[in-house]
Amino acid sequence: YKTFSTTLYRAMLTTEFSEADVSALRADKDRLAKDLHESCQWGYGIRWGEGSTDTGMQRLALSEEDKSVRHWFIKTMKDLRCQITIDEMGNIFAVRPGRRADAPATFIGSHLDTQPTGGRYDGILGVLSGVETIKRMDEMGLETEGGVGVVNWTNEEGARFPVSMISSGVWAESIPLQRAHELKEVPTVASLPTAKSAPETMKSALEKIGFLGDVPCSYKATPMAAHFELHIEQGPHLVSAGQRVGVVTAVQAYRWFRLNVIGRDTHTGTTAFEHRADALYAFAQMMVKAREVAASKGCLASVGIVEAKPGSVNTVPGTVSFSLDIRGPETALVAEVETQLRADFDAIAAAEGAGIGKPCRVEWTLDFDSPAVKFHEDCIGCVQESAYAVVADAPVADTKSLVRTIMSGAGHDSVFTSKRVPTSMIFVPCKDGLSHHPEEFCSADDCATGASVILQAVVRYDRKRFA
Amino acid sequence: YKTFSTTLYRAMLTTEFSEADVSALRADKDRLAKDLHESCQWGYGIRWGEGSTDTGMQRLALSEEDKSVRHWFIKTMKDLRCQITIDEMGNIFAVRPGRRADAPATFIGSHLDTQPTGGRYDGILGVLSGVETIKRMDEMGLETEGGVGVVNWTNEEGARFPVSMISSGVWAESIPLQRAHELKEVPTVASLPTAKSAPETMKSALEKIGFLGDVPCSYKATPMAAHFELHIEQGPHLVSAGQRVGVVTAVQAYRWFRLNVIGRDTHTGTTAFEHRADALYAFAQMMVKAREVAASKGCLASVGIVEAKPGSVNTVPGTVSFSLDIRGPETALVAEVETQLRADFDAIAAAEGAGIGKPCRVEWTLDFDSPAVKFHEDCIGCVQESAYAVVADAPVADTKSLVRTIMSGAGHDSVFTSKRVPTSMIFVPCKDGLSHHPEEFCSADDCATGASVILQAVVRYDRKRFA
Ligand SMILES: NC(=O)NCCC(=O)O
Ligand SMILES: NC(=O)NCCC(=O)O
Repeated sequence: YKTFSTTLYRAMLTTEFSEADVSALRADKDRLAKDLHESCQWGYGIRWGEGSTDTGMQRLALSEEDKSVRHWFIKTMKDLRCQITIDEMGNIFAVRPGRRADAPATFIGSHLDTQPTGGRYDGILGVLSGVETIKRMDEMGLETEGGVGVVNWTNEEGARFPVSMISSGVWAESIPLQRAHELKEVPTVASLPTAKSAPETMKSALEKIGFLGDVPCSYKATPMAAHFELHIEQGPHLVSAGQRVGVVTAVQAYRWFRLNVIGRDTHTGTTAFEHRADALYAFAQMMVKAREVAASKGCLASVGIVEAKPGSVNTVPGTVSFSLDIRGPETALVAEVETQLRADFDAIAAAEGAGIGKPCRVEWTLDFDSPAVKFHEDCIGCVQESAYAVVADAPVADTKSLVRTIMSGAGHDSVFTSKRVPTSMIFVPCKDGLSHHPEEFCSADDCATGASVILQAVVRYDRKRFA
Repeated sequence: YKTFSTTLYRAMLTTEFSEADVSALRADKDRLAKDLHESCQWGYGIRWGEGSTDTGMQRLALSEEDKSVRHWFIKTMKDLRCQITIDEMGNIFAVRPGRRADAPATFIGSHLDTQPTGGRYDGILGVLSGVETIKRMDEMGLETEGGVGVVNWTNEEGARFPVSMISSGVWAESIPLQRAHELKEVPTVASLPTAKSAPETMKSALEKIGFLGDVPCSYKATPMAAHFELHIEQGPHLVSAGQRVGVVTAVQAYRWFRLNVIGRDTHTGTTAFEHRADALYAFAQMMVKAREVAASKGCLASVGIVEAKPGSVNTVPGTVSFSLDIRGPETALVAEVETQLRADFDAIAAAEGAGIGKPCRVEWTLDFDSPAVKFHEDCIGCVQESAYAVVADAPVADTKSLVRTIMSGAGHDSVFTSKRVPTSMIFVPCKDGLSHHPEEFCSADDCATGASVILQAVVRYDRKRFA
């Protein structure tokens, strides 16, 4: 490693660059696109077009497909002579050493897992922009003071194990390791080809694919100087304004709940409405109410999972379980929606079954709480400068108008890294603002723009650190 | 069989009975209870009390548990020297021959399958009342002119294979055999212990448990003189009026549909409500609307099964499938509810996603259509006389007030037999009118009252036939 860091090959020290040198740095668009789609050969999902890459992705965390792409990632990074660390949550850290062996690396991170009906960009682009950054640096012979790392965080989506960003959460020591290891996969995963019949825990799933590492999952064991993340916006703002880069300054708040409505199974054909405690009817009213209340406070409320039991055409369901995802620009607003819905759901439950003196009842479990986050000034500054530099060649009069600051509607691993190290994010537009859908799409140009920004941001941050 | 029908053992010919002899016939309460609970040893479900029989039942059609109770039923009937026929739908016919070998038997029929969270009486009491009838006749040495049969119909519940009474439907030639054989089990069954992972067809399930018989499933191949069925009411009328027997004259109409709502998967955290085509939100509104419309026409509308895909906390479901069960006292009323809901559901779907020019759409499939049915005068007459006779010993002034005529809210195999042969039913009260629930309960006294009525009704019908 010492030998390596002094090879001729790494002749240019980025801290000795001029501002113009940094601004000239660009990712290789074609290589990035090639690598990105190569990594999508494991777990590709629903086809929506004729082209070889016109498919979505179905690569649930810790599935066989995820295992394969993890091996690909490790091999790719080892070929780039990076040092690999795998921790107890299966997070994979690949570090390209800098001149100073003692200084923690500046990281580029995101995730390779996807939604069950996800696309090729959410998370994947972020990790691949890290791969491209390392390749570009090697190719140009760039040397940094601190190292540069790429991290693949486990189960960012929260699609299989229903706590999003759980592994960066453990790394930040915001989520206890044991809680994460014991977390069970969602019931709906059982119907997917990747799934086993009995719900698996994260720990057993990590063991099964051989990614239960022995390095403690903690920012103490695997320190970072900073964390940058490139992501598609997953929303409509950039694309509808024709803008090219979002400088992400904040992430909205959200809470995930699991709710059970308990009523009474009974016969659909012989039980008058007034004699029912129909848990599914109560659920239906709750879902309608949730949208109404959330909208009134400028928030969102969504149900993604619902299970009605026993699940027979002619039995009124006595038990319904569902997920509730409440989001809003401020932590307090999300809390207000929750408070209001707790009261409203209780009222709905109380009315259903009142006629037989056996009203439904509703139980709430908080699975995940992510308060609103503000990113770090220094990182935001690096991203902003880099974004302006990258879009400067665009054929418009006011190129800076192609860049905007933006709040993230979705959570990202950067939410948790920001609790421990300077962090910020870069957004690029995606078609129709659509994400968590097989047709999620980000053009090769937009991908490369984002990767160029993150490449520069990392270099700028390294220069700032050691200035 | 010839030899058998002339044994000394069958000395009393029921056609030579006096009216008083018939009215004196009673089932054996303790034996009936013992046999009934013995048959419940396969597939007992959720426990709700301390007693050995205080559990529900989970014996889905053609499951391993159903196989076991079928073998028990066959052995029991063979021990009673009955002749066994198994047809292509796995229906099991057991006949105790009468004097006239050429005359078809009068049948007592019902079913041994249950709901996933069913009880010990729905269907089971009907079959066991047949077993008790044969045992009582043997014990008393009664001989009938025509034979007396007991039939266990396959998949009456429609809980596993979502067409209720499908096998009596095939027998009546109202449902094509091929359609029944190709019918797939419902998705929710996959989460039950009895289930395989891929949905099974009725034919493969019949083969798997060895009950794909070779006798054609048809009223022509296995003729009946009449069909009587004893059942718990599954509703509150008898129990709340303190009445003991319902003389069932009719069955309400119902239709079962499978609906798909197709919207668009998208991110829950980044997609404004106006940019969604949330199939689950559309479903929720539809379910609320269904109750409203059905109630306005004196009908019922219920959803028992719902599946939202892809089933991830942070993905707005783009596809929802659900079952819809519409019932009403008249066929035309059910059709009116359907017509209204088709329009209302279209409007709900059109509004959800309109903001992005990609409204949801809804598809309907009719799985099952059961028009309202009126039972046969002769059978109703036999049941009525028998009911009056059985309750005559009750310690009340007007014993006839313990008997009422009643319409069935639920479907029964008698609906289909009534299309081909004289048919009627007997109801007995059940606790709180509750059914399709583990705590479904019918006292041993009420079970015996019903069994006594059916025993007499069969004898009366035999006498009437050969008078
Ligand atoms: N970016 C992303 O889709 N993350 C998953 C966590 C969330 O639901 O916001
Ligand atoms: N009796 C009974 O529960 N039959 C099942 C068919 C129906 O749903 O009515």
